[in-house]
Amino acid sequence: MSSKISESYDQLMARYKQLTVIRVASGILNWDLETKIPPKGVEQRSEQLALLDVIAHRELVDPKVNELLGSIEKGLSKSKFDDVQKRNVQLMRKYYDEEARIPDELVSEMSRQAAITVNVWKKAKAAKDYSIFKPDLQKTIELKKRAAGILMDVKGTKNEYDALLDAFEPGMTAAKVTEVFDGMRNGLMAIMKKIESSDVKPDTSIITKRVSVEDQKKISLMVMDFLGFDTTSPESGARLDETEHPFSTGYYDDLRITTHYHVNNFASSMFSVLHETGHSIYEGYQRQDWKYLPVGAAASYGIHESQSRFVENIVGRSPEFLGYALPNLKKVTSGALKGVRLDDFIAAVNKVAPSKIRIEADEVTYGLHIIIRFEMERDIFAGKLSVDELPQAWNERYERYLGVKIKNDSEGVMQDTHWAGGSFGYFPSYALGNLYGGMFLQKMNKDVPDWKDSVSKGNFMPVKMWLRDNIHMKGNMYDPADLIKVVTGKKLDVKPFISYLDEKMGVIYDY
Amino acid sequence: MSSKISESYDQLMARYKQLTVIRVASGILNWDLETKIPPKGVEQRSEQLALLDVIAHRELVDPKVNELLGSIEKGLSKSKFDDVQKRNVQLMRKYYDEEARIPDELVSEMSRQAAITVNVWKKAKAAKDYSIFKPDLQKTIELKKRAAGILMDVKGTKNEYDALLDAFEPGMTAAKVTEVFDGMRNGLMAIMKKIESSDVKPDTSIITKRVSVEDQKKISLMVMDFLGFDTTSPESGARLDETEHPFSTGYYDDLRITTHYHVNNFASSMFSVLHETGHSIYEGYQRQDWKYLPVGAAASYGIHESQSRFVENIVGRSPEFLGYALPNLKKVTSGALKGVRLDDFIAAVNKVAPSKIRIEADEVTYGLHIIIRFEMERDIFAGKLSVDELPQAWNERYERYLGVKIKNDSEGVMQDTHWAGGSFGYFPSYALGNLYGGMFLQKMNKDVPDWKDSVSKGNFMPVKMWLRDNIHMKGNMYDPADLIKVVTGKKLDVKPFISYLDEKMGVIYDY
Repeated sequence: MSSKISESYDQLMARYKQLTVIRVASGILNWDLETKIPPKGVEQRSEQLALLDVIAHRELVDPKVNELLGSIEKGLSKSKFDDVQKRNVQLMRKYYDEEARIPDELVSEMSRQAAITVNVWKKAKAAKDYSIFKPDLQKTIELKKRAAGILMDVKGTKNEYDALLDAFEPGMTAAKVTEVFDGMRNGLMAIMKKIESSDVKPDTSIITKRVSVEDQKKISLMVMDFLGFDTTSPESGARLDETEHPFSTGYYDDLRITTHYHVNNFASSMFSVLHETGHSIYEGYQRQDWKYLPVGAAASYGIHESQSRFVENIVGRSPEFLGYALPNLKKVTSGALKGVRLDDFIAAVNKVAPSKIRIEADEVTYGLHIIIRFEMERDIFAGKLSVDELPQAWNERYERYLGVKIKNDSEGVMQDTHWAGGSFGYFPSYALGNLYGGMFLQKMNKDVPDWKDSVSKGNFMPVKMWLRDNIHMKGNMYDPADLIKVVTGKKLDVKPFISYLDEKMGVIYDY
Repeated sequence: MSSKISESYDQLMARYKQLTVIRVASGILNWDLETKIPPKGVEQRSEQLALLDVIAHRELVDPKVNELLGSIEKGLSKSKFDDVQKRNVQLMRKYYDEEARIPDELVSEMSRQAAITVNVWKKAKAAKDYSIFKPDLQKTIELKKRAAGILMDVKGTKNEYDALLDAFEPGMTAAKVTEVFDGMRNGLMAIMKKIESSDVKPDTSIITKRVSVEDQKKISLMVMDFLGFDTTSPESGARLDETEHPFSTGYYDDLRITTHYHVNNFASSMFSVLHETGHSIYEGYQRQDWKYLPVGAAASYGIHESQSRFVENIVGRSPEFLGYALPNLKKVTSGALKGVRLDDFIAAVNKVAPSKIRIEADEVTYGLHIIIRFEMERDIFAGKLSVDELPQAWNERYERYLGVKIKNDSEGVMQDTHWAGGSFGYFPSYALGNLYGGMFLQKMNKDVPDWKDSVSKGNFMPVKMWLRDNIHMKGNMYDPADLIKVVTGKKLDVKPFISYLDEKMGVIYDY
């Protein structure tokens, strides 16, 4: 019995490895699609990616997987399986159930519709005409509701939207998000109010000074060197390339990040590199002995985002890092930053101002952009908000939470691609990443009290090791709520993030 | 019945499409492995490539494929299938039989051994010690003999080596190759003799003048522009990158070539770009309506090589192209070629001299390098030549055919990777490519008598269109011998190639 169960387990893990190898290969083909492919090759590539998806899907929903799972689960209580093995089985069960229960016909219909809706969204956005987008958005939502209905049964969630949330943030619920986001909104709006009353007006002309692409590449190297992210040595396991929208991808020994150089905004690429490297360090610091196992992966989208934002904001926008960086920036920017004072630089890259566009938002107002999207998603799937009402609901909330007037739907409800692609339940991860980051920071402050000193001297190692030991090397052993508990000893709480922001902004805005 | 057979046919072609999509994806992952991968990622990649191989193999040897083939073949005589459909079925039958009959265990053993032998070969070559290489070469040959024994049955060839040849040059036999290579050897040695007696001694210092990598990139663009190979426009379906050894890969709308820039040999990259683009044009000019069908592919390795060599040598080393190129080269090489006379340039890039290394050989002696390898392969698989005897057999032939003394096995029998990787039967394709090219040239001279005029004015279109109509768009409709017949009306013959060379060298060497 014991040998049979461990044989089944090995077979199950071999199956997971196959799945992963296919998906990692897909990831590289996707990276090539974004970075290197000649324009004519795009259609050919989409056929390759679609087929690899089908192959991975087939591998996962093969009845053999269910059989193996069944035979393992039957003997699990009497087995000598350790927690890692148990978690691997639990995750495989979840992956199998979720993917096997959605009918193939619905899977392909969703992916077909997503391609159409994204295409229509592009046109509608260019034409600033929501009515072009609406019918296909409606279809996308209907398909997603069907899938969510099925997943709700599989996962045993309370409602459909919770089932969608769970795909990005396992175990998270709309009720919980509502609760923490309410607290976050109050906290952020209070900080905004203080900033609005402040006399300090950061001068952002510092970051719009012309810096050539060549010099910005040196900034990227400087930043990656600080982070200990090696893209150049003969032992390197990473690359840096250029794309319109920065992203990161990769697995263990082959990590790839991208950035975009704007000659009139060197800070944009500098913080992109910090952000994307934060993601990649998380992937690259998974435990080697967990490679190709379910536990050898990120815990959730929110935890992933916590790592990128930790590096970008908590470290990258800290006075200590900026103090270390500025002299180096001056060295490599051919005089563009001559005479810039550190205080002005810190204020410029931390400037807070309500805006219409999420991806351009600062650290304080960013969360409000997310809350708006979350509330609307939640209401759509609760049947409280129709596709007809979306633009108005959007615009009202932007006025209420951020005090900005949306002039057209392209800068409003159509600004992001997520809903067009059917990714409902994704947005909350971004803000949860900030909240998790705040909690991690609070704990790290206790564990490594002198980390700021180190960073100010250009030494990121103490922070990196803390993140590695506490988060990266725990892989997917825990659902996010449990991981937070294990790392910090506490439940999800908005206060650490709000305090961190309030304190930093208090110094910058002198309130 | 008729509808059932066409249904089976459609299913069979859908299966071939899947196979092709997977292989094209693999091709890109291989390209990435050679060009972009961070060093640490290599092992991860080899797992991806191995798995995709297994998946493609499974798709092909699925009993369902045999069933579909069987049901189609039964009704084929009474069907309304056209020649293209019939050829598609015939090719699928061949692919299925060949791959299904080799036991999985032997397939994986061969690929495992190939990886080992290539690795050992690298070490042995570095150490100039054949004894390190010998045991694994022996194992590789034994495995290959087992596979060849099975393939001989499947294909119905006369001997094992013919079965290996057929994988690269369908329908070709050792007897036929021996016959044409004997003729080729006599022809080439006669030309060599005339050149040796000539007083003309080309000055190759012209091509070793220092040209920066940047300037050489401009040469690449000039060459690709001449060939109408677009790597830069928004409609481009191709890329050019750098690797240590130039190669080409790709499928239809996504073609990729690489080159290597040596600052002291601009001609090396210039002719590499001509050669690899020749390959890629062949791939890119397959018929659009044959995409993802067995007929929508190259006819053989030899025909592929005929296209690359046609572009590199027959066009690229012609006085007419060189006359067009030289002023352009002068423009982009920052004065490096100032004062170079056209006649001297033509002589330099066409210089003939016996050498030890195949890949550095000129147009005349190249064939002799191939003959040596062919004769030895043939004798190994006929049991007439043992692994112990290889170095001596190699060195003797190099002295006899080329008049050069091999000093060690690294510049001798271990210079190429082919045998280490198990690619026996591959070498003849290179020289057959030259012979095919000679025959194509003879026919093109009749069909497009003024092609040299066009080329001298920088217009490659008449040649390109002739190659497209006569070879590229015929895809894999014919085995090479039949294709030659269809295009030229003649059987394989060495004379056209020898005459072409003799004539060109006669002018250059003034004999």
